Amino acid sequence: MRIDCLQYANWSEKIFRQMREGDVDAVHVTIAYHETFRETVLNFERWNRWFERYPDLILKGSTAVDIDLARETGRTAIFFGFQNPSPIEDDIGLVEIVHTLGARFMQLTYNNQSLLATGCYETEDTGITRMGRQVIKEMNRVGLVVDMSHSADRSTIDAADLSERPIAITHANPYEWAPALRNKKDDVIRAVTENGGMLGFSLYPHHLRNKSDCTLTDFCAMIALTADTFGTAHLGIGSDLCQDQPDSVVEWMRTGRWTKDIDYGEGSAAAPGFPPMPAWFKDNRDFGNIEDGLRAVGMSPDEVEGIMGGNWYRFFAENFGPAP
Amino acid sequence: MRIDCLQYANWSEKIFRQMREGDVDAVHVTIAYHETFRETVLNFERWNRWFERYPDLILKGSTAVDIDLARETGRTAIFFGFQNPSPIEDDIGLVEIVHTLGARFMQLTYNNQSLLATGCYETEDTGITRMGRQVIKEMNRVGLVVDMSHSADRSTIDAADLSERPIAITHANPYEWAPALRNKKDDVIRAVTENGGMLGFSLYPHHLRNKSDCTLTDFCAMIALTADTFGTAHLGIGSDLCQDQPDSVVEWMRTGRWTKDIDYGEGSAAAPGFPPMPAWFKDNRDFGNIEDGLRAVGMSPDEVEGIMGGNWYRFFAENFGPAP
Repeated sequence: MRIDCLQYANWSEKIFRQMREGDVDAVHVTIAYHETFRETVLNFERWNRWFERYPDLILKGSTAVDIDLARETGRTAIFFGFQNPSPIEDDIGLVEIVHTLGARFMQLTYNNQSLLATGCYETEDTGITRMGRQVIKEMNRVGLVVDMSHSADRSTIDAADLSERPIAITHANPYEWAPALRNKKDDVIRAVTENGGMLGFSLYPHHLRNKSDCTLTDFCAMIALTADTFGTAHLGIGSDLCQDQPDSVVEWMRTGRWTKDIDYGEGSAAAPGFPPMPAWFKDNRDFGNIEDGLRAVGMSPDEVEGIMGGNWYRFFAENFGPAP
Repeated sequence: MRIDCLQYANWSEKIFRQMREGDVDAVHVTIAYHETFRETVLNFERWNRWFERYPDLILKGSTAVDIDLARETGRTAIFFGFQNPSPIEDDIGLVEIVHTLGARFMQLTYNNQSLLATGCYETEDTGITRMGRQVIKEMNRVGLVVDMSHSADRSTIDAADLSERPIAITHANPYEWAPALRNKKDDVIRAVTENGGMLGFSLYPHHLRNKSDCTLTDFCAMIALTADTFGTAHLGIGSDLCQDQPDSVVEWMRTGRWTKDIDYGEGSAAAPGFPPMPAWFKDNRDFGNIEDGLRAVGMSPDEVEGIMGGNWYRFFAENFGPAP
C-alpha cells in the first residue's frame, strides 16, 4: 500500500496517470493555503469536476474504506486538507462544514501566527490560543485531524497534549538531520508520536540534508534512525510534492495577502522559485525508489509496508470519523 | 409513517418535542429564502448546533434510510431544502456543494424571475432559462430535487418535462379548489405527476378554500378528489407550517432584498402578517386530525398511509442519491 500524506501539484490528467503508474493508493491533497471559506469552496468545486472527468483514475476519499475501494478498482483516493485555518475564518461552525465537504486535515498555522496557534516563522511562540483550544475540541469531535507541519514548537507540543485524538505532522523531517526552520526537534516529534500521532517525511528539498543533492540512502537512513527512536508505527511519507507548479505559486504560498514585501521563506532572493526535486524522487512514479531504499538500509518488509502506507491507513481509519 | 414535506418554523426545543408528540418521522425544512451561498452556510451551521444539542429529538436526514433510523430511535429526520436558487448564485458547481452539505430540494424560483425559471408572481413566464437547463441536469446528476412550488405554470411544465428525474411541488393545492396564485392548475399537476413527481398539500391558509376557516372535511375531500384525478401515489403533505415566526419574517419572505416597496403577496396591507392556521392544524401534534379526516372521507388505510408519509418516503428513497 502506498499513501502520500501531502501533495500540492498543478493537477492534470498527466499527474493522475502518474499516480496510477506509481501505484499510489491515496494522496492527501492541499486545497487551501490562504483561501477564505468562500474561496476554498471554489477549490472543492474544481476537484468535483476532476472526479467527474477522471472517474477511472481518482475518487474522493472520506474514510479509509475509500482507500480499499481505490485499490480494488485501480484508482487513487484523494483526501483533502488545508495548510492554514483560513478556510474556517473566525467561525468554529465552519469546522463541521468543511469536514462535511471533505476536509480531513487542517493545519492550525501556516508559518505565521493564526487565530489558533503560532507558526514556525514567528519569533514568539505563545502556544494555542483561546479559540485554538475550542477549535481543537471541535476538530476532535467531527474527525478533522490537527496538522502542525508549519507550526512553532511550543504550539505543536501544546496541540499534541490538548488534543484528545492523535495529531499529525504530515510533512517535515527531523531537525537533527536537517536543521531547517520547518523541520521538527526531537521533543516535538516525541510529543506528537507519544500521543499516537504521525510524522510524514518530506521530500521538499529545503527539508532535506544537502537539499536537492540529498541521496536516497541518506534519506532512508534518516527514516530508519527515526524509526529506532520514535517507533516505526508512527511514521509515513508526506512528500510535499509541488509538481508542475509555476514559481508564482511558491510566492503565493509564502506571501498570500498578508504582506506587500516578498518573504522568501526557505528560499532566497537569489533562488526564489521551487527547488529541483532529488533525482530519485521526481514525481508519483518514484515511490518504488523509496521502498527499495528503505529495504536497502535494513528495514523489514513489514516496517517498509507500514511507512509506505500502512501506518497512514490505520491513522486515517481511526481519525476521520466522529469521536466515539 | 408521517412525513411533512415543508416547514419553516422558528425552531426551538418546543417544536422538536411537538414533532415527537405528533409522531412526525421526517420533515423537509426550508433553510434558504433569499440567502446567498455564504449566508446559507450559516443556516447549515445553526442546524448542526441543533443536531448536537437535541440528539434525542432530531437527526440530519440525507437518504430515506435516515427516516428508518429516526423511526427506530424515536426521532425526527430533518431534510433540508431551499425555496429559491439564491444559494447557488451563478455557479453550477455549487449544486454539488449544497447537496454534499445536505440540501435535498431546491425551488428554481421563489415568486420572482430567477436565473433559472419564472416565478408565479411574474406577468410573463418565459419558461426554463439557458442556465436553468444546465442546473436541472446537474441537480438530476447529484440527487437534488427540483421543487416548483413557487414557479409559474409554463416554467413548471417545462421543468417536469426537461428533468430526467421526477420533480416536486412540495407545498401547494389545486387551483380548481382554491384559486390562489400559488395553487396549481390541473395541467401543471398532471405534468408533474405523469413524470413520476409529487404534490404536497399545503395547510398555509392563503392556499386553502376559505383560508383560516377551511374545514378539515373540505380539505380532505379535496385530497380524495385529487387522488381520483391524478393517482394517490403522487400525493403527500407539505404543510408550509411557519410556526412561531414573527410577522417580520413573512415580510422578509416576500421582499428579501429585491425591492424597497412592500409586496404583500398573498396577504394585504390590511393583513400583512401570518394568517392564523385552521383550528384543526395548529402544529406538528395535529397530523392525526388529517389522518382521521382522510379516513372519514372514505380513503382506504393504504391510501391514507401513502399520503401521510409512505409516498414521500418512496420519493426520497429514489431521488436523493446520484443518478444511476
